[in-house]
Amino acid sequence: MAENMEHLEELHTWIRNGDVQALLEMSRALHPADAAERLAVLRPEELGRYIELLGTAQALDIFEFVPFEIQKETLKYLPRTILVELMSLMSPDDRADLVEELDEKSQERLLSLLMQAERQDILKLITYPEGSAGAYMTTDYAFLRADGTIRSALDQLRFQALKKETIYYVYVVNQARKLIGFVSLRELIMAHPDMDIAAVMNKNVISVRVDEDIENVAKEMTHYDFLAIPVVDADDRLVGIITYDDVFDVMTEEATEDMYLLANLDTDEKISSPLPRSVKLRVPWLLINLCTALLAAFTVNFFSGTIARYVALASLMPIVAGIGGNAGTQSLTVVVRALALGEIKVKGNWKVLFKQIGVGFFSGLICGMVMAGIAYAWFGNVWLSLILWMAMTTNLILAGLFGAMVPITLRKLKLDPALGSSIFVTMATDVGGFSTFLGLSSLLLHYLVE
Amino acid sequence: MAENMEHLEELHTWIRNGDVQALLEMSRALHPADAAERLAVLRPEELGRYIELLGTAQALDIFEFVPFEIQKETLKYLPRTILVELMSLMSPDDRADLVEELDEKSQERLLSLLMQAERQDILKLITYPEGSAGAYMTTDYAFLRADGTIRSALDQLRFQALKKETIYYVYVVNQARKLIGFVSLRELIMAHPDMDIAAVMNKNVISVRVDEDIENVAKEMTHYDFLAIPVVDADDRLVGIITYDDVFDVMTEEATEDMYLLANLDTDEKISSPLPRSVKLRVPWLLINLCTALLAAFTVNFFSGTIARYVALASLMPIVAGIGGNAGTQSLTVVVRALALGEIKVKGNWKVLFKQIGVGFFSGLICGMVMAGIAYAWFGNVWLSLILWMAMTTNLILAGLFGAMVPITLRKLKLDPALGSSIFVTMATDVGGFSTFLGLSSLLLHYLVE
Repeated sequence: MAENMEHLEELHTWIRNGDVQALLEMSRALHPADAAERLAVLRPEELGRYIELLGTAQALDIFEFVPFEIQKETLKYLPRTILVELMSLMSPDDRADLVEELDEKSQERLLSLLMQAERQDILKLITYPEGSAGAYMTTDYAFLRADGTIRSALDQLRFQALKKETIYYVYVVNQARKLIGFVSLRELIMAHPDMDIAAVMNKNVISVRVDEDIENVAKEMTHYDFLAIPVVDADDRLVGIITYDDVFDVMTEEATEDMYLLANLDTDEKISSPLPRSVKLRVPWLLINLCTALLAAFTVNFFSGTIARYVALASLMPIVAGIGGNAGTQSLTVVVRALALGEIKVKGNWKVLFKQIGVGFFSGLICGMVMAGIAYAWFGNVWLSLILWMAMTTNLILAGLFGAMVPITLRKLKLDPALGSSIFVTMATDVGGFSTFLGLSSLLLHYLVE
Repeated sequence: MAENMEHLEELHTWIRNGDVQALLEMSRALHPADAAERLAVLRPEELGRYIELLGTAQALDIFEFVPFEIQKETLKYLPRTILVELMSLMSPDDRADLVEELDEKSQERLLSLLMQAERQDILKLITYPEGSAGAYMTTDYAFLRADGTIRSALDQLRFQALKKETIYYVYVVNQARKLIGFVSLRELIMAHPDMDIAAVMNKNVISVRVDEDIENVAKEMTHYDFLAIPVVDADDRLVGIITYDDVFDVMTEEATEDMYLLANLDTDEKISSPLPRSVKLRVPWLLINLCTALLAAFTVNFFSGTIARYVALASLMPIVAGIGGNAGTQSLTVVVRALALGEIKVKGNWKVLFKQIGVGFFSGLICGMVMAGIAYAWFGNVWLSLILWMAMTTNLILAGLFGAMVPITLRKLKLDPALGSSIFVTMATDVGGFSTFLGLSSLLLHYLVE
C-alpha cells in the first residue's frame, strides 16, 4: 500500500510538471495492463493530461487496458484533436464498446468528429444486440485473396500493419468477400515462399454468424481450441473476428452469471456496488423467496393441531426440510453446470432426471436412517424414527426430481436454466418436507402420543 | 441421433474392411475436434485399428482431441511400434497427462519402450504437483538466442517445425538458458529481415514459476490478455510455456469447482458419474449438514415450551430461517466470486464485511416489515409482527456478517473460500433465526398469549 501511495505521488508530480521523460520511462518499464492499473487511480483530468503529454500513439496501449468507466470520464478532458486521434487508433471493438457506454449527446458529438469510415464502422458495431457475436467481434483482422504466393501474402501482411494478436489467422476470401478458407501465420512461415496461398489454405473453415449468442461462440472456440474465429453475415461474407481474449471475458461473465442466478442475485450486482444499489437489487429476490416461504408456513400451519399435541415435531421438521434443500441444491447445481457446458444431450434429459431421483432415493435412505437413529436416542419413540426415515427419503426423492426438472424445463422454455431455479427447488423441498413429515405424523399421531 | 447412428455404422464397416481411403476422407473433411467426437463412440480396439490404418501422423491430430479415458483404453490395443510412434509425436503436455492417467504397470511398460529423451521429458512433467504451472505446461515451445538477425531467426523457426499454436511467441534466452526476452511472431514478420533480434525483442518479459498455482497463472494470463506465458525454474531458466487453450480449461474447471463447493458437492462428481458414485460423493456432505441441522433442532427444542403455548410460532419460524439462509447465500456468493476474480484487495476485507452487514440490515428492515404486515393480517397480533420484524432484521445482519466472514476467514487459513462455506452460513442463519425469533417470543410470551 505504502508503495502504491508513493507511485501515486510521483505520478501527480510528473503530470503537474509535464515531465514527459519520467512518464515515458514508467510506461515503458511496465506491461500496459500494469501501467493502466497504476494510472486508473488518477483523476480523469490527470489521465487526459497524461495522454496529451505522451501522445496518443504512446498512450494508446495503456489506455485500452483502463476500465471503461474511467475511459469514458477521461474523454471529456481531451482536446478535440487528441480525442479524434485516440479514437481512430483504438481497436474497433474496444472503440465501439466505449462509444456505446457514452450518453447520447456525447456519442453524437464524438461521432461528428470522426471520419466517415470510422463513424460507419462504429455505428455498425454498436447496433449488434448485446450478447451477440457482432457485439464482441473486432473488424481489425487480416485477410487475403486466394490468388498469389506465400511471399506476396507475407509482404501484403507486412504492409497491412495489423494491430495486436489479430494476425495469427489470416482469412481467405473470394471476390464477393465470401469466406473460403484460412491460413495460420505459422503455416505461412513454415511453407515455401513460392507456393500458392490456395495450396496452403485450409478450406474447412469454421465460422459463426454475426447474430449468434456469444456464449455459443465461446463454446465453439474452446471446443476447437481456436485462437480466433471468423464472423460472417447472412450471405457468408466475412465481417469480423472474435479472439481468444474475448472468450476469457465471456467465460468469466458466464460463470459469474450462473453462480449469481443460483444464489438469487441480480447479475448487475458487483462487490463494489454501493450499499443502496445492492439492497435495491437483492430485496426483490428476497421478497419472491418470502412468497414461497409463506407457502411452507401455510403447510406447517395446516398441521398446527398435530404440533400442539406433540411439540417435538417442531424441532425435527427443519431437519427434514433443510437436508432436502441441500440435496436439491446439489442436483440443481450439477444439472445447471452440465447444461452450461453442453454436457447434456438434448435426448438425454430423461436419463439425467431418473439418475437424480435415484441419487435422492439412496441418499435419503442413508441419511434418513442415520437421522432415525439419532431421533430414537433423543426421543425414544420408534414410530417417530420411522416417520423421519420415510419423510427424509421421500423429500430427497423430491429434491432429485425438482433439482433436475426445474433447470431442464427452464431451458426448454428458452430461459436461463439457473434463473430462479433455487427458489423453486427449495419451495418444493420445504413444502414437500413439511407436508410428508407432519402429514405422516398426523396419520400416526396415536403412536406418537400415548 | 439417426444421423449419428448412420455415421457409426459406416465407421464400423470402414474399419472392419480396412477402407483407408474412406477413413482418410472423413478425417480430412472434419475438424479434428469433430472427428474425435465421432470416433469417441467406437470401442477402444476399433479406435486402435483406426490409428493403425491411418498411420500415426494422420491420426495424431484427432487422437489428441479424444478424451483421456478413451485414449488410455486405446493404448492397450496398439502394436508396440505404432504405440511408440504415437507417443513420440504427441505434444509433450498431452503425453505426460496421458501417462499420468495410466496405472503403474502400464506406465512402466510404456516408458521402457520410449527413447531416453522422451522418457526423461515425461518423467519430468509428471512429477510436477497437480494444479501447478509445471503440470499444465508444454515443453514444445519456440526459442532463440539473442544474437542473429530476424532473417536467420525465421529460417531457424522454419526448421524447428514446431507443432500447434506454440510458435506465436518466440522466447529469447541467454547462454545459461535464462529467459531474457520475447518476440511475437507478428513482430518477426513485421520487422525488417536484416534487423537484430536483440533490437526487436521485448526485454520486459513476464513469466511464472514452475511451482506457481495454475489458477494464479490463469489470472495473470487473462489480466495481460496473453496468448502464452513462459514458465521458468528457480534459476529463471526457461522450462516450458502455458498456452491460452490451457487457460480455457482452467477457467472452466475453476468455475465448476466454486459452484460445486457452494452447493456442497464433491468436485469429482460429474453429470455422467454412475449413480452409486454420486451417492457416495454426496452423502458425506449431507451428513455434515445433518449435524448442523441438529444444532438448529436443539435450538428449537430449547424453546419447545414456548411453541407448545403458542403454536403459530412453528409456522412462522421457517420463514425467518429461510429468508436468512437465502440472504446469507447472496452475500456468500458475491464475496466468493469476488475473491476468485481477485476483486477484493487484501486490505479491503473490513470494507467488504461492513457493506454486507449493512446490506443485510436494510434488506432485513424492508423484508421484515413486509412480513410483519402479512403476519398481522394473518394472526392479528401486533407484538407477533414486531417480533418477526426484529428477528428478521437481526437474522439478515447475521446473514451478511457470516456470508462475508466465512469465505474471508477460509482464505486467511489458505483454504478455498467456498469450501463448506454454505454449511457454516446456513447454520448461522438457522440457529440465529430460530433463537432470535423464539427467544424474543419467549420473553414477550405474555403479549402473544392472553
